[in-house]
Amino acid sequence: MSKAIKRNSQQYLYQQVISMVLEMQASGTLRPGDKLPSLRKLSQQLSLSIPTVKLAYTELERQNVIVAKPKSGYFMKPNLKLLDIPTRGKLGRSPTQVNNQSLIEQVYEALHLPDMVSLGIANPSSAHPCDKALARIMRQVLSKAGAKAISYAPTTGYAPLKRQLALRYFDYGLQLNPDEVIVTNGAQEALSIALQCVARKGDVIAIESPAFFGVLELIESLGMMALEIPVCSDDGIWLTDLVTGINKHSIKACLFSTSINNPTGSFMPDDKRKELVELLESHNIPLIEDDVYGDLYFTKNRGIPAQCYAKKGLVLTCSSFSKTAAPGYRIGWLIAGQFEAQARRLKRALSCSSSLINQWTLAEFIAGSEYDRNMQKLREILKLNKARMLACIQDTFPQETKASNPKGGGVAWVELPTKIDSEELFHMAIEQNISITPGVIFSASKKFKNYIRLSYGMPWTDQVENAIKTLGQLISSQQ
Amino acid sequence: MSKAIKRNSQQYLYQQVISMVLEMQASGTLRPGDKLPSLRKLSQQLSLSIPTVKLAYTELERQNVIVAKPKSGYFMKPNLKLLDIPTRGKLGRSPTQVNNQSLIEQVYEALHLPDMVSLGIANPSSAHPCDKALARIMRQVLSKAGAKAISYAPTTGYAPLKRQLALRYFDYGLQLNPDEVIVTNGAQEALSIALQCVARKGDVIAIESPAFFGVLELIESLGMMALEIPVCSDDGIWLTDLVTGINKHSIKACLFSTSINNPTGSFMPDDKRKELVELLESHNIPLIEDDVYGDLYFTKNRGIPAQCYAKKGLVLTCSSFSKTAAPGYRIGWLIAGQFEAQARRLKRALSCSSSLINQWTLAEFIAGSEYDRNMQKLREILKLNKARMLACIQDTFPQETKASNPKGGGVAWVELPTKIDSEELFHMAIEQNISITPGVIFSASKKFKNYIRLSYGMPWTDQVENAIKTLGQLISSQQ
Repeated sequence: MSKAIKRNSQQYLYQQVISMVLEMQASGTLRPGDKLPSLRKLSQQLSLSIPTVKLAYTELERQNVIVAKPKSGYFMKPNLKLLDIPTRGKLGRSPTQVNNQSLIEQVYEALHLPDMVSLGIANPSSAHPCDKALARIMRQVLSKAGAKAISYAPTTGYAPLKRQLALRYFDYGLQLNPDEVIVTNGAQEALSIALQCVARKGDVIAIESPAFFGVLELIESLGMMALEIPVCSDDGIWLTDLVTGINKHSIKACLFSTSINNPTGSFMPDDKRKELVELLESHNIPLIEDDVYGDLYFTKNRGIPAQCYAKKGLVLTCSSFSKTAAPGYRIGWLIAGQFEAQARRLKRALSCSSSLINQWTLAEFIAGSEYDRNMQKLREILKLNKARMLACIQDTFPQETKASNPKGGGVAWVELPTKIDSEELFHMAIEQNISITPGVIFSASKKFKNYIRLSYGMPWTDQVENAIKTLGQLISSQQ
Repeated sequence: MSKAIKRNSQQYLYQQVISMVLEMQASGTLRPGDKLPSLRKLSQQLSLSIPTVKLAYTELERQNVIVAKPKSGYFMKPNLKLLDIPTRGKLGRSPTQVNNQSLIEQVYEALHLPDMVSLGIANPSSAHPCDKALARIMRQVLSKAGAKAISYAPTTGYAPLKRQLALRYFDYGLQLNPDEVIVTNGAQEALSIALQCVARKGDVIAIESPAFFGVLELIESLGMMALEIPVCSDDGIWLTDLVTGINKHSIKACLFSTSINNPTGSFMPDDKRKELVELLESHNIPLIEDDVYGDLYFTKNRGIPAQCYAKKGLVLTCSSFSKTAAPGYRIGWLIAGQFEAQARRLKRALSCSSSLINQWTLAEFIAGSEYDRNMQKLREILKLNKARMLACIQDTFPQETKASNPKGGGVAWVELPTKIDSEELFHMAIEQNISITPGVIFSASKKFKNYIRLSYGMPWTDQVENAIKTLGQLISSQQ
C-alpha cells in the first residue's frame, strides 16, 4: 500500500484507511474475494496502531465492503460480476430516429412526487451539498451588487466567471481566452447550441449506447438521427466500432461523454481521449464532449478534457455546475472551438443570456478553494456510496444481476434477468415511493429493456437501503 | 378634466395634477400646442388651491412638457410630429432570409462597455428597480429553503410560481390550469420553443416591421423566413396587410407583440387583438404573442393577452419578468395552447429546467401586493421619462426628426433625416460613450437605415439629457 497516511490531515486516521481501501477497490486493485492484510501487518506498514486499523476494518464490514472470516482474516466482499461489455454486434445497423418522450416525461415527473426515494435522478452533488457555502456567498453578492443583482448579464456570460473557468482549463494545460467560454443554461443548453452549430435536421450524430436520455431528447427535438456506438463499461466507447460507423455512415458529428459515461460510470483514459480526437479530426468530424461528470472521478487523477487535444478546433466542450455544486442554478458553459462565432449567436437567439446572480455566486465560489475542497469530499462520499449500493444490490437482487463498477459520477448501470421489463418495474417502484430510471430511455433503438440506472448520489440512509431491498423484492416477484 | 383628484392618496396633490396632464398627453387627448386651462379655472374644476396648480404647471414646465407664453397662458409644448405610419407598400413582397448578426452583436457588446449611457438597451425596469425587495425575498428564500435552494426545479417550472401566474391570467378572465404554464429562461426561450412547436426550417413566419431584433435572430437561427407586416405606430400591425400576406404567401405562423410593440411603443387595442385571433384561427394559423411589455401600459387599462380570445388553442403566449422586475433572473413563461405537450418536451430537451432560486423568489414577490405597487410606480416614471425624452429630442435633434409617441414600454422609435446612416451614427455615439440601437437591425430586409431606437427606461439624470443633446449634435454634424 503505497499511499501515505497524512498525520496532519483533517480526516481521522481510521477514515484514511477506509478511503484507501475504497480507492483501491474503485481502481480495481482490490477485487472481490481478495484477502486484506492482517491488522498487525497493515498497522506496521502504515505505522498506525492496531486499534486504528481495527476500527477501519469494522466500519468497512458494517458498510458491506469487506467480510471477516473467522480464523482466516478479512476479505473483500465477493462482489457483483462486472457488467458485460455490450457485444460488438450492437453497433447500430443504421441511424435511428429517436422517440422515447412519454416515458422520459414520466421519469422526470416521478422525481418531484412527494416522499419519493429518488434512485432515478442523477443529482450526485446532493450526497454532499454545498448549499450553505453558496447561500453565504449569494448573500454577500446581494449586499454588494445592489441593483446590479437583477440586471442582465452579458449574452455570453459574466466576465469573472468566464475568467475563472478559463483558469481551470489552464490547469489541464489549455491556454484559453475567457472570451472563448460561453455561459449557458446548464450543460443541456450547451449541448443544444453545440449540436445546432455542427449539424442540421436529418444529419447523423454518433452517440454512446447507452447514452444519457437528455441527449436523445435533444437529437429528437432537432430532427437529427442517432447512430449508437457501444460503450464499454470500463473505458468509454469502442473506437473500433466508431471507425466502422465512420466508414459505413455519413456521421456529421459525435456527441460523447468523453469523461464519465452516464449511465455506466465508464471512464475514458486520457490516451484514449487523445486517440479519439485525432481520429475524428483526421475525418473532419466535430466532437461534442459532455464533461459534466469530469470532476467526479474515482480514478487517481481527473481526466483531461478532449478539448485539450484538439488541433483543428473541432472539439466543442459542454459542461456545467449541475452535477458538482448547484443543479438548480442552471449554469453551464460551452467552449466551441472553431464554431465560437456561431455559438455566440445561437446563445443570444435561443435565450439571450443566463442568470447574473447565479453566475456571480458561482464565480466567487470557484475562485476560492472551497469548490475544490467540496469536490474532494464529494468524491469520497460518492465512492463510499457506490460500494454501499453495489453491496446492497448483491445482497437483495436476483443472482443473475450484473452491475457496472462506476469509475466516477453518481449512478450505476444494472442489468437484470432478461425476463424483467424495467418499464413495468419503474411503475411498480413508483407505487412503493421509489423512483428508478428504466433502461429503455438510454437508447434510440429501445435496447436495454431489462436494465435500470440507479443513483447512489444522495445522503446514504436506511431509507435508501430499504428502497434497494424493496426493489430487489419487486424484481424477484416479477420473475 | 374628468379624473378626480384623490385627497387620501399617498401622492401630493400637485403630483396628481402632473400625472393627469401626462396621462392626457399619453392618451392623445392633449396634443402639442393645445392650450391648458388657466390656473384659476383648473383650481376651480379640481377644487384645489391656485398655488397647488401653479406648482404642478411650474414642474411640468421644468420637465419640458408645457410652456408658459406671457399674457397667453400655458400650452402643451409643440411636440414632435407623430411618426408617420409605414406606408402600405412596405408589406414585404416576398419572405426574406434574415442576416443581421454582426451588427446585433456589436449592439449587445456596447451595452456592457464601462461608463456607457445606455440608450441602446430595452431595460425599462431599471427606471424604478425593485432590487431591494427582491434581495430581501431572496434572502428569506435562502433561509427557509436550505439545500433545496440549489436543487433542480421541475422541468416545467416551480409549482407555486406557475400557480401565481395562472392567477394573474384569471384576472384577465382566463381560466388556466397552472400545469398549462411552462417556465422558461426568459421570454426569448419561450419564443424559441413556441416557434419550434409550430414551424420548421424554411417556413414563413409573419412578423412586425419594425420588429424586436431578438425575434429576427431567432428566426434566422432556426432557418425560417420572415414576412414583414407593417406596424402602425399607434395600434399594432395593419390587419389589412396581414390579410394580403395570408392570401399571397403560405404563412405558417405569426409572431407579434400583441401588446406593446418594440421599438415603436404601439399598443394594440383589445378589440383589435380579438379580431386578430379570430382572423388567424379561421385560417388555422398559430399566433405567437410576445407580451413582455404588457404590464408597462400608459393607456387606461392593461391590454388583454390575445391568449384570452383563443378558441382553438392556436395562441402561444410568451412573456417574462425581464422588462418589469428582474431582467437578470432569466425567468419567463410560455402558455402553448394545443401545443403544450410539444412545448414541455422542447423545454426539457433545450435546457432541462430553469433556475429554482430565481423562480422561488419571483413567486413570493408576485404573490404579495409588492409587484403590483412597483408596476404602478414604474409606469408613472416611464410615462414621465417618455415626455422628457421626446421634449429633449425636439430641442436638440434636427427639425425633420419624427418620433413615435409610445403607449407603453420603455423605448421610442425615432426617424432621422433620410441622409442619416444610423449604423454610422451608432459607431460615432459609442465614441462618445453613448449606446443607441440602429434601425436596420429591426428589419429582415434592412429597412429603417435612418431610424434609431432610444430607451427612456432608466433613472433620468443630467447625464442622460446630455447624451441626447450630444446625439443631436452628432446627427446635425452628419447632415
